[in-house]
Amino acid sequence: MTTLDDLPIRDDLRGKTAYGAPQLDVAVRLNTNENPYPPSPALVEDLARAVRQGAATLNRYPDRDALDLRKDLADHLGHGLTARQVWAANGSNEVIQQILQAFGGPGRVAMGFEPSYSMHPIIAGVTATRWIDGAREEDFAIDEERAVRVIEEHRPDVVFLTSPNNPTGTALPLRVIERILAAAPGMVVVDEAYAEFARTGTPSALSLLPGNPRLIVTRTMSKAFAMAGTRLGYLAADPAVIDALLLVRLPYHLSTLTQAAARVALAHRTELLGTVDALRAERDATVDWLRQRGLSVADSDANFVLFGKFPDRHAVWEGVLERGVLIRETGPDGWLRVSIGTGDEMAAFRAALEGILG
Amino acid sequence: MTTLDDLPIRDDLRGKTAYGAPQLDVAVRLNTNENPYPPSPALVEDLARAVRQGAATLNRYPDRDALDLRKDLADHLGHGLTARQVWAANGSNEVIQQILQAFGGPGRVAMGFEPSYSMHPIIAGVTATRWIDGAREEDFAIDEERAVRVIEEHRPDVVFLTSPNNPTGTALPLRVIERILAAAPGMVVVDEAYAEFARTGTPSALSLLPGNPRLIVTRTMSKAFAMAGTRLGYLAADPAVIDALLLVRLPYHLSTLTQAAARVALAHRTELLGTVDALRAERDATVDWLRQRGLSVADSDANFVLFGKFPDRHAVWEGVLERGVLIRETGPDGWLRVSIGTGDEMAAFRAALEGILG
Repeated sequence: MTTLDDLPIRDDLRGKTAYGAPQLDVAVRLNTNENPYPPSPALVEDLARAVRQGAATLNRYPDRDALDLRKDLADHLGHGLTARQVWAANGSNEVIQQILQAFGGPGRVAMGFEPSYSMHPIIAGVTATRWIDGAREEDFAIDEERAVRVIEEHRPDVVFLTSPNNPTGTALPLRVIERILAAAPGMVVVDEAYAEFARTGTPSALSLLPGNPRLIVTRTMSKAFAMAGTRLGYLAADPAVIDALLLVRLPYHLSTLTQAAARVALAHRTELLGTVDALRAERDATVDWLRQRGLSVADSDANFVLFGKFPDRHAVWEGVLERGVLIRETGPDGWLRVSIGTGDEMAAFRAALEGILG
Repeated sequence: MTTLDDLPIRDDLRGKTAYGAPQLDVAVRLNTNENPYPPSPALVEDLARAVRQGAATLNRYPDRDALDLRKDLADHLGHGLTARQVWAANGSNEVIQQILQAFGGPGRVAMGFEPSYSMHPIIAGVTATRWIDGAREEDFAIDEERAVRVIEEHRPDVVFLTSPNNPTGTALPLRVIERILAAAPGMVVVDEAYAEFARTGTPSALSLLPGNPRLIVTRTMSKAFAMAGTRLGYLAADPAVIDALLLVRLPYHLSTLTQAAARVALAHRTELLGTVDALRAERDATVDWLRQRGLSVADSDANFVLFGKFPDRHAVWEGVLERGVLIRETGPDGWLRVSIGTGDEMAAFRAALEGILG
């Protein structure tokens, strides 16, 4: 039998394993930061109607530039943005890949501050962009002075800032983003996948876009929008950045169905984003409960909470799983991440953890 | 205003323009090799039903490995294939990109025989794979002996063979593929996007898969399947090849809706592929008519026809467009490509061309 080792794959892929959290069939899944609330029957009906309409021309290629969707996304984001400043792809992973294909690549350097979203360095690898970890402090914050120093040292072509950060959960002060934007010689990507969950008063990097053509802010419909199955990521940036992405995007990358579904979701955004308040309240309660249990917990602006530290985190992860709750073994050693689910799901999580910690 | 030139894009992208045929609002569109027959009301209803079902869990990520869809695709392809030997992505463009990310990349070489599918060298560029044109003969055939010589000279990591070839239209004899497979040191990709349209008796490279772990056969649902709007490309290969692609694929790259829609299309494949015979007849009639008009025409196993040669092909393209028919200015200088549409659309094409040639 032929194995992977027998094939002429790229040398830097040898020995690697495919990325991905275990997709296990467990009653309570709190491992991939999904929104636990399914779409309403009204939204489902609108979706079916839009698909029925779009399906009539499915033999034709989709709008290659997804202009209607980009206009809707711009309207949703506000900040005076137009379709020319918005781009969309199949999940923010594809958005990130396109950014690295346009601005990274062989001989170029991307930098992040880890622990952070693990796909940033993985996609850097796939696009042959050298990855440098700028590293966070012990408390998971980014120290401005140190960040500026490592940026000046390595002159990265692309800097990734994740705010709120995954898997730690905390948003970045705008001041840090501004300092890094001033110091960075290349593009600065602020990954705001979880922005909608931020604590009150947390500003978005969208407010920094005017006058900053090297800034890109990415978003997703997979989290607050409760549309992980639709795979729709998007970004806002200077129109010239969109022009750059057009040089590397695969033509017709966004299907007719994806464009239609995302537009229906945007039309129902009041309903979809209506779940955010409940999730934030549940998150804050989870943070409080974990702290009362004597655990360390990172401040969370997201729909998940990082907690620890456990001498044997794998044993805790497994114990929680045995009690029917799937959380994520990720982040720095000793820490675990739990996504925020419904009230019942969080009760199940607390009971499971209680059962282990005694 | 910031322009593309002001941004730190990759040096090899400077001066390039975005790929893509003009998407013009013309009554008769015969430019992107779409299938002119829209899905039936029964198919549309099944699609809406499948989407309604899938939408109930759209807040969750899709099956990351698309196993049900891959099983259906394997059953469709036959040749004793199983889901472990089949892979799918958002259009065959993404399939090709994943192949080049796994087996191409910096320091590696991909080779095709041009004129051929223009996305092969473009995606090679995006993935930083050096592209070498092995070149076809004057009659658009691949000369075995010369092909083996250029392969031995350049030792490409990935060879692309397009059969039927786009934009010329002719399928490759299996013997040529076998010779190249024996000579090539790396992967050999046979792009069979148009295979279903081939003239009777044309074998598929799928029959060569057993014992050839370096062979990949790609297909699409955009052409014969009349599902261009769904964006579903797929491939068959040794299971080890799929393992390699898993290292570079973006997690959850295929949405819940795409997986559901493609499965519905496969369930309706008798209806969808039922249009192939009519299109082949229309194609053969188009070839005959063009030849009767004294034009040169490449033998076509596809749903398009390459014809020429015109001293000023742009003028002919424009003249046809002015008469309400959009064809494609592509392929070697002096040639034009027309996609096969319905009988009425082909009559409009003939009338338009007649109006110019007089």
